[in-house]
Amino acid sequence: MAEDKKLVEAITSMDVDFAQWYTDVVKKAELIGYSSVKGCMIYKPAGYAIWENIQRELDRRFKETGVQNVYMPMFIPESLLEREKDHVEGFAPEVAWVTRGGLNELQERLCVRPTSETLFCDFYKDEIQSYRDLPKVYNQWCSVVRWEKETRPFLRSREFLWQEGHTAHATAEEAEQRTLQMLNVYAQFCEEVLAIPVIKGKKTDKEKFAGAEATYTIEALMHDGKALQSGTSHNFGDGFARAFGIQYTDRDNKLQYVHQTSWGLSTRLIGAIIMVHGDDSGLVLPPAIAPVQADVIPVMQHKAGVLDKAMEVSRSLSDAGLRVKVDDSDKNPGWKFSEQEMRGIPVRVEMGPRDIEAGQAIIVRRDTREKVTAAIEELPAKIKQILDDMQRDMLERARAHMAAHIYVASDYEEFKQTAAEKPGFIKAMWCGSQECEDKIKEDTTATSRCMPFEQEHLSDVCVCCGKPAKKMVYWGKAY
Amino acid sequence: MAEDKKLVEAITSMDVDFAQWYTDVVKKAELIGYSSVKGCMIYKPAGYAIWENIQRELDRRFKETGVQNVYMPMFIPESLLEREKDHVEGFAPEVAWVTRGGLNELQERLCVRPTSETLFCDFYKDEIQSYRDLPKVYNQWCSVVRWEKETRPFLRSREFLWQEGHTAHATAEEAEQRTLQMLNVYAQFCEEVLAIPVIKGKKTDKEKFAGAEATYTIEALMHDGKALQSGTSHNFGDGFARAFGIQYTDRDNKLQYVHQTSWGLSTRLIGAIIMVHGDDSGLVLPPAIAPVQADVIPVMQHKAGVLDKAMEVSRSLSDAGLRVKVDDSDKNPGWKFSEQEMRGIPVRVEMGPRDIEAGQAIIVRRDTREKVTAAIEELPAKIKQILDDMQRDMLERARAHMAAHIYVASDYEEFKQTAAEKPGFIKAMWCGSQECEDKIKEDTTATSRCMPFEQEHLSDVCVCCGKPAKKMVYWGKAY
Repeated sequence: MAEDKKLVEAITSMDVDFAQWYTDVVKKAELIGYSSVKGCMIYKPAGYAIWENIQRELDRRFKETGVQNVYMPMFIPESLLEREKDHVEGFAPEVAWVTRGGLNELQERLCVRPTSETLFCDFYKDEIQSYRDLPKVYNQWCSVVRWEKETRPFLRSREFLWQEGHTAHATAEEAEQRTLQMLNVYAQFCEEVLAIPVIKGKKTDKEKFAGAEATYTIEALMHDGKALQSGTSHNFGDGFARAFGIQYTDRDNKLQYVHQTSWGLSTRLIGAIIMVHGDDSGLVLPPAIAPVQADVIPVMQHKAGVLDKAMEVSRSLSDAGLRVKVDDSDKNPGWKFSEQEMRGIPVRVEMGPRDIEAGQAIIVRRDTREKVTAAIEELPAKIKQILDDMQRDMLERARAHMAAHIYVASDYEEFKQTAAEKPGFIKAMWCGSQECEDKIKEDTTATSRCMPFEQEHLSDVCVCCGKPAKKMVYWGKAY
Repeated sequence: MAEDKKLVEAITSMDVDFAQWYTDVVKKAELIGYSSVKGCMIYKPAGYAIWENIQRELDRRFKETGVQNVYMPMFIPESLLEREKDHVEGFAPEVAWVTRGGLNELQERLCVRPTSETLFCDFYKDEIQSYRDLPKVYNQWCSVVRWEKETRPFLRSREFLWQEGHTAHATAEEAEQRTLQMLNVYAQFCEEVLAIPVIKGKKTDKEKFAGAEATYTIEALMHDGKALQSGTSHNFGDGFARAFGIQYTDRDNKLQYVHQTSWGLSTRLIGAIIMVHGDDSGLVLPPAIAPVQADVIPVMQHKAGVLDKAMEVSRSLSDAGLRVKVDDSDKNPGWKFSEQEMRGIPVRVEMGPRDIEAGQAIIVRRDTREKVTAAIEELPAKIKQILDDMQRDMLERARAHMAAHIYVASDYEEFKQTAAEKPGFIKAMWCGSQECEDKIKEDTTATSRCMPFEQEHLSDVCVCCGKPAKKMVYWGKAY
């Protein structure tokens, strides 16, 4: 393999420069292209196909919980964005403004949605009259715009793709239950489909969403030990309802405010897939999300019967429900092997004249490079087994990596030393004050990732100020 | 049924006021909501679910022809939009301009994409180097913005959802072939899935897309006799390639310009479904596209066993691959029947205690109101048969309606009289000059819909000026 690798332009080693490795993989695996619009990315076929698979699987899970899809306008009138005080403060500094439509100056400028709470509230205000109209459990798949200064493919860009769910409920309890339900949908999706383990918890007040009463998050750990916020679910209580006047008549004929939630997950997750599973040969895609699961590579394809047999194998795999391609390009096999590795296709099937004569083919698994020889008629069953094993092993490896990078800090010196020397999460007690969060960030660049649902009592006092502790917090440097 | 209909707020009769009927249906069937952003619509669950089904089915057909999905930025720098002269002239007057990002004035203003030819060209310029990089057959599902003055739900709005395919080819022949291939995909989709027959043809130079060498179109006829352009496919030749410098090295190592196409189909088609199939009770959805195909309505649902049996029937229909819902709301059955009709759900299944005791249920077909009684265990097979019949009959009825509204005009008096008195298509010969098109439009408000692929020789001379005729044209008043 060392020989073949040279065939594909080398990518930077992860250990040498993780950030450069990431950029190289994104480019060489042809996931992203750069556009003429600064900070806006082009999702190329290999990148967009991952997003399509995420959409399909997540959308199915949403609908099982009663979610209905809608589509709201992409523009928000300035006066609407300003209706909820905390919300506008959080978003106004980073939105793009449309000031002209056609040949005329607009009377009121419109922002391109950075998120759509205000539009949904404006809509719900008219849609919801009675308890019979509740709950509303709506979602949209769309792009949003945030005028970021620094951008990185998938992780931060001026326009990105996401889904945003927006719900309205009769009671506070029901809203809280939905907020947590969707967080769990996200967590299960990450673990079961993307093979990415996550920590579930609540954000501190400092880190919560602009306008939310509570924000819940799933936090994943990248290969380099940095955290990535991978999905958030917000409980708004009745704050937006009061700002927008969203009221319903309850069963006793009394006017009540609704309770609302929102939850979102974005193309950031593709960044997580890359940084959790990738290696020095490129991308490694979990079989459950891989657009192509098996890459059939004929060896000496000019020899009679080789290509035909490759096509036949491809059809049999496809009939067995696998996503397959045949690489019949005029490149040499070594190049094709490297390309399959770069693109993270979970298995490749190598077959040359001698293999075909012997009625067999070689299956190479992307993550472990394990090679097995299998009879051609057994390929579908064998590959399915390998993909299942690979999916399971990838999650296990990611779990082990995360477990090996969670540290405990009992005092502030230990905290600072760990933050400086050991990339990963730091578990430490916290008094609940923003002053300590600010100080920790200033001293270490680590931020509070979440107050995990699974609390532990590490000590009685805040790791930073020494005052009585209220919560155990996961801290970490984050993307 | 006359009794029940009153339960749902009346909609205007089609014959009294077709435009008002349309608006009523769109609102009462809960397809669309109006937003605070003038001219932008909210796609509500019932409306968006139709679009999701259109997307799923069309996307599958695209991919069978080798299309790959991508996603381009929603912004186009002004200088990029201006690169192709005809294109910018066509679109610049109706775009929305972003002039501020975050807290700063932008150095160059960005328009929100009205269509993405320029972005794809800018992208292809770097992506395409060699004949090995061709063809590129990319598509994106997104929304686009055109600052229209007058808007109508689905038919014309400032933001709408669509797909836009953009391809690049080595030869002019291949580009032409792809242009026609996609037009045929559209036409087959309309007929097979939406039960909407279409006329296929080429647009006149006056009506073609800004920057295209040739525009092909599918034209449908609405119930009121007005035409709706339902999908277009453009051949750009190498015009954009020359403007953007998209060149490749051919097999002989010579630099060549690529040949390009684009093709789009939008949420307009939902307007076509409404106006081709709807009736005075509301929407009638073709079974193949209906988000809910069967509405199970329990009668006297408070009686023991009724709801349970309705749920059991729903599961059996669902297991048979049908899209089903049970209406177990606390409204009365008559109301539910009217709602099912308003929403255009293809069949309803009525079942009360006596039906259940007799082991049967009543199936009512939406388009014909035909009622049949069927044994409960036979419901899945019976309903499938009814849906198949309905799909076929809807296409046949629409075909008959179109055929009955195609007129021939041999001279200009006849043309004007037909245009004034008989809503529908007028077939007439044309000399090829824009003067005649302009005159016909001024005199009758009819425009040239297309030069159909199936040409007929009606006479030797242009219906307008009497000079030698070049083409037979379908004329009509259009949405």
